[in-house]
Amino acid sequence: MHKILIIHGPNLNLLGTREPGVYGKVSIAKINREMAEIAKKSKVQIKIEQSNHEGEIVDLIQKANGKFDVILINPAAYTHTSVAIRDAIAAVNVPTVEVHLSNIYAREEFRHTSLISPVAVGQVSGFGAESYFLGLEAAINIAKKK
Amino acid sequence: MHKILIIHGPNLNLLGTREPGVYGKVSIAKINREMAEIAKKSKVQIKIEQSNHEGEIVDLIQKANGKFDVILINPAAYTHTSVAIRDAIAAVNVPTVEVHLSNIYAREEFRHTSLISPVAVGQVSGFGAESYFLGLEAAINIAKKK
Amino acid sequence: MHKILIIHGPNLNLLGTREPGVYGKVSIAKINREMAEIAKKSKVQIKIEQSNHEGEIVDLIQKANGKFDVILINPAAYTHTSVAIRDAIAAVNVPTVEVHLSNIYAREEFRHTSLISPVAVGQVSGFGAESYFLGLEAAINIAKKK
Amino acid sequence: MHKILIIHGPNLNLLGTREPGVYGKVSIAKINREMAEIAKKSKVQIKIEQSNHEGEIVDLIQKANGKFDVILINPAAYTHTSVAIRDAIAAVNVPTVEVHLSNIYAREEFRHTSLISPVAVGQVSGFGAESYFLGLEAAINIAKKK
Amino acid sequence: MHKILIIHGPNLNLLGTREPGVYGKVSIAKINREMAEIAKKSKVQIKIEQSNHEGEIVDLIQKANGKFDVILINPAAYTHTSVAIRDAIAAVNVPTVEVHLSNIYAREEFRHTSLISPVAVGQVSGFGAESYFLGLEAAINIAKKK
Amino acid sequence: MHKILIIHGPNLNLLGTREPGVYGKVSIAKINREMAEIAKKSKVQIKIEQSNHEGEIVDLIQKANGKFDVILINPAAYTHTSVAIRDAIAAVNVPTVEVHLSNIYAREEFRHTSLISPVAVGQVSGFGAESYFLGLEAAINIAKKK
Amino acid sequence: MHKILIIHGPNLNLLGTREPGVYGKVSIAKINREMAEIAKKSKVQIKIEQSNHEGEIVDLIQKANGKFDVILINPAAYTHTSVAIRDAIAAVNVPTVEVHLSNIYAREEFRHTSLISPVAVGQVSGFGAESYFLGLEAAINIAKKK
Amino acid sequence: MHKILIIHGPNLNLLGTREPGVYGKVSIAKINREMAEIAKKSKVQIKIEQSNHEGEIVDLIQKANGKFDVILINPAAYTHTSVAIRDAIAAVNVPTVEVHLSNIYAREEFRHTSLISPVAVGQVSGFGAESYFLGLEAAINIAKKK
Amino acid sequence: MHKILIIHGPNLNLLGTREPGVYGKVSIAKINREMAEIAKKSKVQIKIEQSNHEGEIVDLIQKANGKFDVILINPAAYTHTSVAIRDAIAAVNVPTVEVHLSNIYAREEFRHTSLISPVAVGQVSGFGAESYFLGLEAAINIAKKK
Amino acid sequence: MHKILIIHGPNLNLLGTREPGVYGKVSIAKINREMAEIAKKSKVQIKIEQSNHEGEIVDLIQKANGKFDVILINPAAYTHTSVAIRDAIAAVNVPTVEVHLSNIYAREEFRHTSLISPVAVGQVSGFGAESYFLGLEAAINIAKKK
Amino acid sequence: MHKILIIHGPNLNLLGTREPGVYGKVSIAKINREMAEIAKKSKVQIKIEQSNHEGEIVDLIQKANGKFDVILINPAAYTHTSVAIRDAIAAVNVPTVEVHLSNIYAREEFRHTSLISPVAVGQVSGFGAESYFLGLEAAINIAKKK
Amino acid sequence: MHKILIIHGPNLNLLGTREPGVYGKVSIAKINREMAEIAKKSKVQIKIEQSNHEGEIVDLIQKANGKFDVILINPAAYTHTSVAIRDAIAAVNVPTVEVHLSNIYAREEFRHTSLISPVAVGQVSGFGAESYFLGLEAAINIAKKK
Repeated sequence: MHKILIIHGPNLNLLGTREPGVYGKVSIAKINREMAEIAKKSKVQIKIEQSNHEGEIVDLIQKANGKFDVILINPAAYTHTSVAIRDAIAAVNVPTVEVHLSNIYAREEFRHTSLISPVAVGQVSGFGAESYFLGLEAAINIAKKK
Repeated sequence: MHKILIIHGPNLNLLGTREPGVYGKVSIAKINREMAEIAKKSKVQIKIEQSNHEGEIVDLIQKANGKFDVILINPAAYTHTSVAIRDAIAAVNVPTVEVHLSNIYAREEFRHTSLISPVAVGQVSGFGAESYFLGLEAAINIAKKK
Repeated sequence: MHKILIIHGPNLNLLGTREPGVYGKVSIAKINREMAEIAKKSKVQIKIEQSNHEGEIVDLIQKANGKFDVILINPAAYTHTSVAIRDAIAAVNVPTVEVHLSNIYAREEFRHTSLISPVAVGQVSGFGAESYFLGLEAAINIAKKK
Repeated sequence: MHKILIIHGPNLNLLGTREPGVYGKVSIAKINREMAEIAKKSKVQIKIEQSNHEGEIVDLIQKANGKFDVILINPAAYTHTSVAIRDAIAAVNVPTVEVHLSNIYAREEFRHTSLISPVAVGQVSGFGAESYFLGLEAAINIAKKK
Repeated sequence: MHKILIIHGPNLNLLGTREPGVYGKVSIAKINREMAEIAKKSKVQIKIEQSNHEGEIVDLIQKANGKFDVILINPAAYTHTSVAIRDAIAAVNVPTVEVHLSNIYAREEFRHTSLISPVAVGQVSGFGAESYFLGLEAAINIAKKK
Repeated sequence: MHKILIIHGPNLNLLGTREPGVYGKVSIAKINREMAEIAKKSKVQIKIEQSNHEGEIVDLIQKANGKFDVILINPAAYTHTSVAIRDAIAAVNVPTVEVHLSNIYAREEFRHTSLISPVAVGQVSGFGAESYFLGLEAAINIAKKK
Repeated sequence: MHKILIIHGPNLNLLGTREPGVYGKVSIAKINREMAEIAKKSKVQIKIEQSNHEGEIVDLIQKANGKFDVILINPAAYTHTSVAIRDAIAAVNVPTVEVHLSNIYAREEFRHTSLISPVAVGQVSGFGAESYFLGLEAAINIAKKK
Repeated sequence: MHKILIIHGPNLNLLGTREPGVYGKVSIAKINREMAEIAKKSKVQIKIEQSNHEGEIVDLIQKANGKFDVILINPAAYTHTSVAIRDAIAAVNVPTVEVHLSNIYAREEFRHTSLISPVAVGQVSGFGAESYFLGLEAAINIAKKK
Repeated sequence: MHKILIIHGPNLNLLGTREPGVYGKVSIAKINREMAEIAKKSKVQIKIEQSNHEGEIVDLIQKANGKFDVILINPAAYTHTSVAIRDAIAAVNVPTVEVHLSNIYAREEFRHTSLISPVAVGQVSGFGAESYFLGLEAAINIAKKK
Repeated sequence: MHKILIIHGPNLNLLGTREPGVYGKVSIAKINREMAEIAKKSKVQIKIEQSNHEGEIVDLIQKANGKFDVILINPAAYTHTSVAIRDAIAAVNVPTVEVHLSNIYAREEFRHTSLISPVAVGQVSGFGAESYFLGLEAAINIAKKK
Repeated sequence: MHKILIIHGPNLNLLGTREPGVYGKVSIAKINREMAEIAKKSKVQIKIEQSNHEGEIVDLIQKANGKFDVILINPAAYTHTSVAIRDAIAAVNVPTVEVHLSNIYAREEFRHTSLISPVAVGQVSGFGAESYFLGLEAAINIAKKK
Repeated sequence: MHKILIIHGPNLNLLGTREPGVYGKVSIAKINREMAEIAKKSKVQIKIEQSNHEGEIVDLIQKANGKFDVILINPAAYTHTSVAIRDAIAAVNVPTVEVHLSNIYAREEFRHTSLISPVAVGQVSGFGAESYFLGLEAAINIAKKK
């Protein structure tokens, strides 16, 4: 059975309460439940983690090596500042899908560049919670083609 | 029945033969057939256009107003140079989904900026032909929520 | 009798319906009628064209050579991206007046630079439909001084 | 009766003698006389000021509040360097029209950016003395619509 | 009784020993004691934290939601690099005051930009230990006005 | 008795009426009265000046030499454009505190850089009228430590 | 017999009349006749096209695939703005020679960068009409080496 | 008898007391006396002015027209910020020599660019008070060659 | 006996398995063993740490104060993003040697700048595992000269 | 008989052995022999020089004045760094043709700008050894038109 | 007797014949003769060198150490490109005066920055041959003050 | 027996006397003697050259081809300006080690970029004379692994 590691980056634990105008009103728990259902239907296993710590996210990615088929990550704020997460993704042998809730290209200038994108397989952004579900679908397809 | 306009930008008619290392080996006809099937299953109607002409794409977007629920566009080269297409999307009352076959963030510097992204609902990029199918799914969801 | 060619650039055919907050509620038909009246009063002849195609606008400018005394152009989106239109204006022997409905300096950064301005005689911008009427007046004066 | 304040910025008192290749041969006195005639015809009252001092221009704009319906300003050199004049315009409740004699976009790089434009209603530039007359016309229209 | 959370960013635990030429000779313990006295006099409650970890500071800010009226933060090195702390401040419903011991504008170029400032209510910087006391006063006033 | 010179830069005389959304509704007279009270309580003498003229502010700073212990300045628009005021502060032997009503880091890009900050002792910004009172307090402390 | 497609970009149809100081006095007809003679002597077949439309040039390049051995192109204004033409050249399997009449490096800054150059085999520029003849010679050599 | 106008820019009245490490210990009075002697020896007449006001310096330059053969100016802080002084120099028919006491190229980045230099005949900088004497000598030579 | 603290930055625990084309095939365990031998021969004591967490590395550096004579650090990804580590090195009284396995100047643009280098004594980079041994030798020499 | 000076810049003496993937396998001796044959056929005289020294190339260009009709130069590395060679070409009265073996626009960023191009008549680049032969042909034509 | 070394940089040997519009019609021999006379009158000894070779100029500067009191240099093209000459001036214990014939600030952008200026005592530029004489005077004064 | 070529760049012949604060007090002769001893111990042969001439350094590198196993170079000032030396290193088949005495990252901005680094195997910098000895050690290891 294929396994997918899902990583929520910093401040995503506040989802639903945090700036709902920007990030939507859906809570992270609800997103996680819907992803669990999608996984069940597609017969893949998922594990979900959240961390506000750059170093912990690096640790999680490193440990995915050999244990997971695909990583689905919303690097949130670390998208724009973390070379360490980028290097971790490049270091492990696990294809990675990058998702964003908001349309980062319609926001502040410094959110337009992503350090993660060049090492990810692909990106889904701007569709709110839907970004996760489309990204998960992409991740499942990649896992199944392996 | 919901209607979605799909626009392939310049050079996408060559898909399958054009730089397969970058864009994949799937032909545009095949992608279109698969999109037709997805549409059929989801009970939405799609219309597919391709043009190498910036002005024609502007015309297509303008005419979508009132006729289509969502636009799905791969602006290809015009992503990086066309303010006219951006203005057309902003001018019409039709939510627009942007897709790219390749991971534009892993390519030349000038492909990292998109004039279209700030006026699109969201983006899907890097998954090859799969980008279209995920994007279409997003478009269908948007149409159905209207 | 002096002759003036008036060119509306891309998306201006949507005027009145397109982002009225930015471009005003006056339709292009209404602007054209008012310009026709001004022309009549000033005893000059005008010809009005609109195109979403960069190449067609280049064609129009080239053909103005020897047939029109002045060109009045609202290059819209092509203001910021078209070296071809700039070169066409520089190539023909027809003085050109540039107009903009909105105050482009109060909008997105990329709208602050104009490729057309350095080859135009002068600019009028920010007065809404009034920009056209002031620009036409300037064009008429230039034509009459020839 | 509507009232319009006209402000000539630094070095414009030299008009006619100053670099005639760039600014034309018409003297400021002549421009002022023609503007007086236009005002008379349109039945508006104008007051004309000239100053080489940034601070004096700020003072003039501040005092226009409640006394004038529109300001017509050629900020000349201060166009490119004065945040103080910009802030004064933004601070008072008087719509402002910006004019320039020369086509500033066909001159030195540092003259291409204007600190004033984003807070002005609109701009007229490049038509020599005619810029003032078109700008005054715009100002009169704005005053009358109030 | 109003509650204020005070966060000392990375390396501030070394205060007094660390580059005294830049940061002054007062130890962090002394600053904390003086702040406790100010709080006592003003009848507000303060809680003081210090961390060298970006993720921990994000955690602290998140937990302040609903528990503290104002946050007083000296983000130190993370001022210039942490989008995660910025996002945390923007996410929680707690007004935040930013303080710096040294005059960051008189130091290296990369210390001139702050990612935190745009989401803070205001800043106090350059007065050494005094920056904290002035900042605390500002925080107390904000808390009392709530 | 210690003496502090307070300088209000350009357009601050309009305070209370000028863009209240940005600068608050408190008038400059009210701020001056409150500062007079603070000074009285702290037993320092203050002198308050306002000018829209860069040169006058330079004159004021020069004359402060030997007559005042500290300068408190809100350079307003000249913050971003005046090397002359910066040089005057560096030239006289009077420590200077810089204050701003609004959070300049949350406004237009060109307001993010300050020519004054590198020669000031410290800055207080973003707290509205409160910025002046905190800044005055800082100035009094500096004066008393002399 | 080898076949070479020659594409004249926008405004080149005006050659001889257009800014003769920059582009020379030779007409495009004359250049075409001389190229026909060179082709005849070298026993290669040439086909000559001109278009002011970016999209048409993309179409022409796409259709050259399998029909022509080499493309000789003067992209004129599109040199600096067209990613679509660049992508078309990269997409088809036809080596491309880039020519320019004027020395683009001695002209305006924005003419110094070419989007086409990185995908062309080589460039000839600055020799007036001669640029075409040298470029054609290069193209013939490439065709014959195939 | 030839006449030379000497203008000292802002803060130069403080010379001798102002940052002696940067500007030297010689007072402006002493420099003026030495220039008077040089003028006497060379049989030219000089007039010396100092102002902290940009507008006053513009006025002085304007009035020099027809009355002075050469202007010698140390624009000090206005070197880097005043387009108005630059335009005044370009507007009057009086050749201008620019001097600086300190080596502006060995100081802060923003002092490396001069708005005045492109319209001055030449520059002398870095030799302390000697810069004035060498500059005066240059001015005298220019006056005599007229 | 002299003591040297050796810090491996993020992702270096994967050495040998991580992108061997870039970082070489030698494992971190092997490098550590060889460094232990060098230390033994030179009669210095070494302590080796590895962390993926920026905050932990800051903690390690702070604690080195008074306990170690020299720090040898490979900051890896944090080289380019961590002001906190830079400030920690500047804050403690321990000379620091910076090493890199790969030639960072032959890699992506963003790896060319180091926030750490200005506060390090010196750098060794590009020699693979050998960088560590040369860096350790440098560290030992610095320790012995103390 | 017309005379042409051919200058090979630094490292071109290694041609054929140096990075054959970039510069081709043809030796400089072979290129020189072919150029000699072309010259013979065209009845012009050529002189060929090679130097790795910027100063020597300046000397060669200076001495060409009055002795040669045209210079053909491959400035190689000095293309991007030598103002001295540029000034020498501008100083002498000899039209100059610039050639490059490789397509410099498809290489490193710093090779995209040429200090030489603005003072050369024209450029030929990217055709390998053929660049020299086309360039020589251009040079011969220029010489014969003199 | 004081000794001054005068160095003419690249292409200055052509003075009088080289672009007289930019550099004047006076030959280098004439300038040298006049400098010899000035030296004679001031009772200092001068030695004059010219070289087109950066390395030779470095050699000349190095050998001046201990033998000359001041260096007068016109670095010409090397002003903008030579760190080696800058380092040589900084390395020797000889104060250096920099002169330029033309007003480099009124020429191409790349001539506006000088690598030499920060290590020179001062600069004289724009006065043609007169720049040398004023510079020599400055050099003599420096020598005599030693 | 392995052979290593050691090249000292411009101004390094002055070592010991040149800015000892930056480059240390050890003379180049002393460094050379110590390197000779290291070479002797390691049983490799070294040849040491010094030149202030960019062209001579290019010549030296070219001649190393086939004669030396490794080059050790301190390019000094040419580090930042010489594409010619970079191309020479890339052209010959000899691995190259780059060393610097000072920590170039703690100096002027223009010393932070190196044209040489991308073509060198690795770098050692900042350890004073020790940089050479560590670099030589690295060079010896590379030679022995060949």
